[in-house]
Amino acid sequence: MSRSIDKTNDFSLRSWVESANQKDTDFPIQNLPFGVFRDRGTTQNSRIGVAIGDQILDLTSCYHAGLLQEFPEQLQAACTASNLNPLMALGSWASSALRTCLSELLRWNRHKPSSEAKLLVPIMEAELLLPADIGDYTDFYASIFHATNLGKLFRPNNPLLPNYKYLPIAYHGRASSIVLSGTPIKRPQGQRKVPEDSVPSFGPSQLLDYEVEVGFLIGAGNELGQPIPIDTAESHVFGLCLVNDWSARDIQTWEYQPLGPFLAKSFATTISPWVVTLEALAPFRCPAFSRSQGDPLPLPYLYSSTNTRQGGIDLTVEVLLHSAQMREQGIEPFCISHASFRQMYWTMAQMIAHHTSNGCNLQPGDLVASGTVSGAEEGSQGSLLEITRRGSQPIKLATGEMRIFLADADEVIIRGYCKKENYARVGFGKCQGIVLSAE
Amino acid sequence: MSRSIDKTNDFSLRSWVESANQKDTDFPIQNLPFGVFRDRGTTQNSRIGVAIGDQILDLTSCYHAGLLQEFPEQLQAACTASNLNPLMALGSWASSALRTCLSELLRWNRHKPSSEAKLLVPIMEAELLLPADIGDYTDFYASIFHATNLGKLFRPNNPLLPNYKYLPIAYHGRASSIVLSGTPIKRPQGQRKVPEDSVPSFGPSQLLDYEVEVGFLIGAGNELGQPIPIDTAESHVFGLCLVNDWSARDIQTWEYQPLGPFLAKSFATTISPWVVTLEALAPFRCPAFSRSQGDPLPLPYLYSSTNTRQGGIDLTVEVLLHSAQMREQGIEPFCISHASFRQMYWTMAQMIAHHTSNGCNLQPGDLVASGTVSGAEEGSQGSLLEITRRGSQPIKLATGEMRIFLADADEVIIRGYCKKENYARVGFGKCQGIVLSAE
Repeated sequence: MSRSIDKTNDFSLRSWVESANQKDTDFPIQNLPFGVFRDRGTTQNSRIGVAIGDQILDLTSCYHAGLLQEFPEQLQAACTASNLNPLMALGSWASSALRTCLSELLRWNRHKPSSEAKLLVPIMEAELLLPADIGDYTDFYASIFHATNLGKLFRPNNPLLPNYKYLPIAYHGRASSIVLSGTPIKRPQGQRKVPEDSVPSFGPSQLLDYEVEVGFLIGAGNELGQPIPIDTAESHVFGLCLVNDWSARDIQTWEYQPLGPFLAKSFATTISPWVVTLEALAPFRCPAFSRSQGDPLPLPYLYSSTNTRQGGIDLTVEVLLHSAQMREQGIEPFCISHASFRQMYWTMAQMIAHHTSNGCNLQPGDLVASGTVSGAEEGSQGSLLEITRRGSQPIKLATGEMRIFLADADEVIIRGYCKKENYARVGFGKCQGIVLSAE
Repeated sequence: MSRSIDKTNDFSLRSWVESANQKDTDFPIQNLPFGVFRDRGTTQNSRIGVAIGDQILDLTSCYHAGLLQEFPEQLQAACTASNLNPLMALGSWASSALRTCLSELLRWNRHKPSSEAKLLVPIMEAELLLPADIGDYTDFYASIFHATNLGKLFRPNNPLLPNYKYLPIAYHGRASSIVLSGTPIKRPQGQRKVPEDSVPSFGPSQLLDYEVEVGFLIGAGNELGQPIPIDTAESHVFGLCLVNDWSARDIQTWEYQPLGPFLAKSFATTISPWVVTLEALAPFRCPAFSRSQGDPLPLPYLYSSTNTRQGGIDLTVEVLLHSAQMREQGIEPFCISHASFRQMYWTMAQMIAHHTSNGCNLQPGDLVASGTVSGAEEGSQGSLLEITRRGSQPIKLATGEMRIFLADADEVIIRGYCKKENYARVGFGKCQGIVLSAE
C-alpha cells in the first residue's frame, strides 16, 4: 500500500516553496492535497490546485506552462477542469501519477520552474470552493464508542444494538446542503417535543450540536449491480477530508423514528477544502481496530487480511470551540476533544465493500463520512451530546461561560493531522463554521 | 390553482396527432407531460420532448422550426437542453408558458405546422431516458394506512408512532441508483438474519418487494437557509411521476435500527419517464385527506386553508404483476392493488414545507417521493409486505403460482391515471421493472 518507490513520502524532502518546509505546516511537500479555488473577489471559473505550505500550486497554470505534457490528454483535461470530478473519475492511477509529477516539480533545487511561470497563488488570496460536485452523501456510524455513548443515553440497558458488530450502520445524508469550511451555519428551526410537553412545537433548535467525522471522497465509481470487493475498495477512494455533521438533537429525537435522521442533519454539513490522498497517508496506516474477544469475526465480504493488517489510519482529529466572548477577550480557541480515526470499529474498505454489497453504485465525487469519531478515553468524544452526557455535565469555558450545546456565535473548528517520528506531518487544514441565530 | 384561462384542460380539445384523441390514451392534448429521449439505437445527445398520443413532440425540432421564438432566450435554450433541469430551474412560469404554446401548436386545425417540419418522433422509436439529473432523492412516508399496516406487523400494540400525525416522516434516499422504467432490477445481496438464526448471513435477498409511490420533481429551488412556506410550496413542483421504491425486507429488518433504511433500498429505485405537470392535474385536485376526529391540527407551518381545500390529487395508482409463467402462457398482467393518492395523510405542499423548514435547500431536478400509497380498503395496499401480511397470506396468480414476495423474472408494472366525467384522462404511462436473479 505504501508507495516508497515514488519517494513522495521521503521525510528529508524539501520544497522550493519555503513555507512548505516549516515543521508545523499542514501542507509539506509530502502531503500535496487537492482542492478547488478561484482568485478571491472574482467570479472567474474555478480551477484545481494542490496545497503546498501557504500556497496553492495552480494546475491550470502548470498546464499552460507545459509542465503536464507527459500525461495522456484526458488527465491534462482533468487538470484544467473546474472541479475534481474529472480527475476523480480517472481512478487512482491518475492522481498518483499527477502527485508524483507535482512532487518532483516542487522539490528543492530540482525542477524549479522559470520565474516567468506564475504557478503559485497564496492561499490567503484564494477563495476555496467545494472540491467536488457531490452527487450522493452517505454517513456511517463506524465508532463503537460513539454508538455506545449514544446508546447509553437513550437505551441504558441495551446501549448497542444487535446488528452493530455485524455490519457498518449508515444512512443516506443530504448532498445539497454540504458547504465548505467557513460557511456560517444558521441555527435550524424545526419541530421538537420535550417529554414534559404534551404536543410538539416549532421553533429554533435548542440543542444544536456538532459531530466530528472523517470523510472520504470517491474516485472511480462502480457500475450499478457490481459490488466492490473489500480488497480493491481503497482504490476507489480519491482522498480524505474533515466533516462536521451539524446535528439538532431536539429535532432528531422527535423525528427519527422509524426512518432515521432527516431534518436534524439536512440543514448543513461542513467539509474541509483540501482532499488528502491515501498516498500521503501511507506512512500512517495501521491495523484495523482490534475487536474485543467474543466479538464476531466480520462476514467474508467484510474481511480481508490486508484490511486487518493496515486498514486503519492513525489520524488525529480535534475539536476547538471559540465563543464570541472568547474572541472579544482575545482568548484562543479551546480544545474540547481529540480522538484517533484508528479507533473506528469499521474501516474505510469495509464501509465501501458494505455500501456496494447490494450493487449500489458509487460515483466520482460522492462523499462517504465515517460517523462521529469518538474514542474510548475521556476527552475523546466527538460531539457535545456525548461530552456533556446529554447536557448533564456542562463544559466551562475560560470566560466562565457554560456550554451544554452550541450557542449563537459559537465557532466550531475541527482539525486533523497525522504525526509520527521521522515523518513529515500530514495535515488536513481545518473545517470551521460559526453558528448564526435562527433569525 | 386551476388555470382554466389557458384552456389547456378543455375537455373538447382535440389534436391533429390522431392517437392523442383516443379515449384510453395516457397522453391526450390535455396532458403534455415532459420527458427526455433520443432516437433508439443511437448515442446521440438526448433532447427534451412532450408526449402526445403515441408520439413525442421534439422540442429541439420545434426550436429549429422557429416555433418557440416568442419565448425569452433562456427558455428557448432550456428547450434544447439535454435534460429537463434547465427548464425546471426557470420556475413554473416557464413550463406553464411553454405548455400553453405547445397546446396551441398541437390543436386540431389550428396551427398544424408545415409538413416539412418533422416535429414528431414515435415513442416506439425513441429511447426514453431519466427526465432529470437528480441531485437528491427524498422519500416520505405520507400514507397513514401504509404506516399503520407496517406498524401492525412490527409493533402490534403500538402501530403508529407518536410523531406520525405531527410531521411528515421522511428519509434521504440514494440518488445514484435511480433508474428509468424498463431497467431490469438485479436481486440484491445483503446481510439478513431471521430470528431462528443466531448470526446473520450474506446472500441474495429472499424477501424482495416493491413499493408504489408518487414522485414529484422539483422545479425552482430555494436557497440554503430559506424555508419554503406552505402557500408557495406547489410553485416549486415541476411535475409528478410514478416511483417503485424496490425494497429488500430481510435486509431492511436487520439493518434499519437505529438510522433507518439503507442497503434495503439503495440497490435501485425506478421512476416513470413522463413528468406530468400540476397544470395537467388541475381538474383532479381535491381536498387534503380528512383527518380523523381527535387527530391534531397541523402546526401552523404545515397548515394553509388552500392546502386543506385542494392540496390533494385524485390520482389512481395500480400495481400489476406478470410472472415468467404468465408471460409464457400469454396471460395478461394481474392487477394486485390500486389506491388513490388522495388518501395520503400529508400533501405535497406539506412535504415541501416540512422538508425545507430547517433551511434545507431543494434544487431543480430533485426527486421527492410520497412513500407507499396505501389506502384504507382491502386491495389498496401498495406493497407485498402489506398485501400478504408479511408473507402469511400468499397471493395466488392465474397460473396457480403463489407469491409472498417477488420471484426472479417477475415483472412489476405500476400505472397511474386521473379520470373524471367530462374530463380527458390524464395518464402517467408506466413504471416497470423485471427482477433478475442475484447471479
